[in-house]
Amino acid sequence: MADAIARRGLMFILSSPSGAGKTTVSRRLLAHDGAIRMSVSVTTRPMRPGEGDGRDYHFVSRERFDEMVAQDAFLEWATVFGNSYGTPRAQVREGLERGEDFLFDVDWQGTQQLYQQAEADVVRVFLLPPSIAELHHRLTARGTDSAEVIAGRMARAQSEISHWDGYDYVLVNDDIDACFAQVAQILAAERLKRARQTGLVPFVRELMKPVA
Amino acid sequence: MADAIARRGLMFILSSPSGAGKTTVSRRLLAHDGAIRMSVSVTTRPMRPGEGDGRDYHFVSRERFDEMVAQDAFLEWATVFGNSYGTPRAQVREGLERGEDFLFDVDWQGTQQLYQQAEADVVRVFLLPPSIAELHHRLTARGTDSAEVIAGRMARAQSEISHWDGYDYVLVNDDIDACFAQVAQILAAERLKRARQTGLVPFVRELMKPVA
Repeated sequence: MADAIARRGLMFILSSPSGAGKTTVSRRLLAHDGAIRMSVSVTTRPMRPGEGDGRDYHFVSRERFDEMVAQDAFLEWATVFGNSYGTPRAQVREGLERGEDFLFDVDWQGTQQLYQQAEADVVRVFLLPPSIAELHHRLTARGTDSAEVIAGRMARAQSEISHWDGYDYVLVNDDIDACFAQVAQILAAERLKRARQTGLVPFVRELMKPVA
Repeated sequence: MADAIARRGLMFILSSPSGAGKTTVSRRLLAHDGAIRMSVSVTTRPMRPGEGDGRDYHFVSRERFDEMVAQDAFLEWATVFGNSYGTPRAQVREGLERGEDFLFDVDWQGTQQLYQQAEADVVRVFLLPPSIAELHHRLTARGTDSAEVIAGRMARAQSEISHWDGYDYVLVNDDIDACFAQVAQILAAERLKRARQTGLVPFVRELMKPVA
């Protein structure tokens, strides 16, 4: 068995409207693929019971977060309901250099930020629901929400869907097992891209030696 | 089950030095994947017993072949031992439009010609042997060839290997089953590229309609 060829890791971005399976596919990918993980985000929100600093998040003050923004220390960051969340650039850069892959479960805005920062390392995958009727069904499945709440969810889902054309791969999630298998195939294939396999140059140099 | 999204076919190029598994992987891919096939080449060489015109090759006269070259009717062509072989452009173009994939088992020169003609449709995969010793072993396995013949084969193999960096994907064929699985994953992933799925625009248009 030849040693595995050393490679640079990749940033695997999974986006979808709510109700199209992103969370399920992400969880399965993290559970089944030992080489991919999520980066640990930096946040200004308070730690909750059971959470660990450096494990679930890096918990920092507002002042520290703003300082990191000013230092361009984030690959992407966003503020949601007054709390800020950011992906630390150094953590991802060092992981990629060690050949680790990172999964990003972000919306189209996070995707655009990551792509602008690290185009060559990014692989963008978008999941679509099989039909608008099925999406509506999935978003109403709990059955206890008002028509207005559901209409708001549908509007947000369609707004997210409208960005499908900013992705490298687009999948229709009609069957979660088939969809997960396709996502895993994309990840496997992307790892075989010549440009990511940093160990090919020394490997081929050996192949080109004269035979004794 | 949603209808499959219509897609444009792709041109899947598999190259390797002799002894690195290209022929075995090609045969398996054609046997196991119903959506990919080889184009039928045009040739000036005489038909052999058991061959069928239009099935194994399109057999044409030298005059007709040269006329087709002048008309730019070939995606790529080459002359080997006095006989010419060419890939007819119209056959591939029409197949791609119908969503059919084509397998090309060509060397680095054929790869460059195809890429220059149809960059967006082309996926280039290169197979490497696991080591120079193993390549030498595979090229001498018949055991009846002179040292000079084997040295010539090794030189040709190393010359082909020197073009590894003109490919999108590079695989080390250490185990034929694992290598075939990787090639199949690449093909599956490439079919999911947004840019090949011509049916996505109308599909998404439906998803964006207001819910009744």
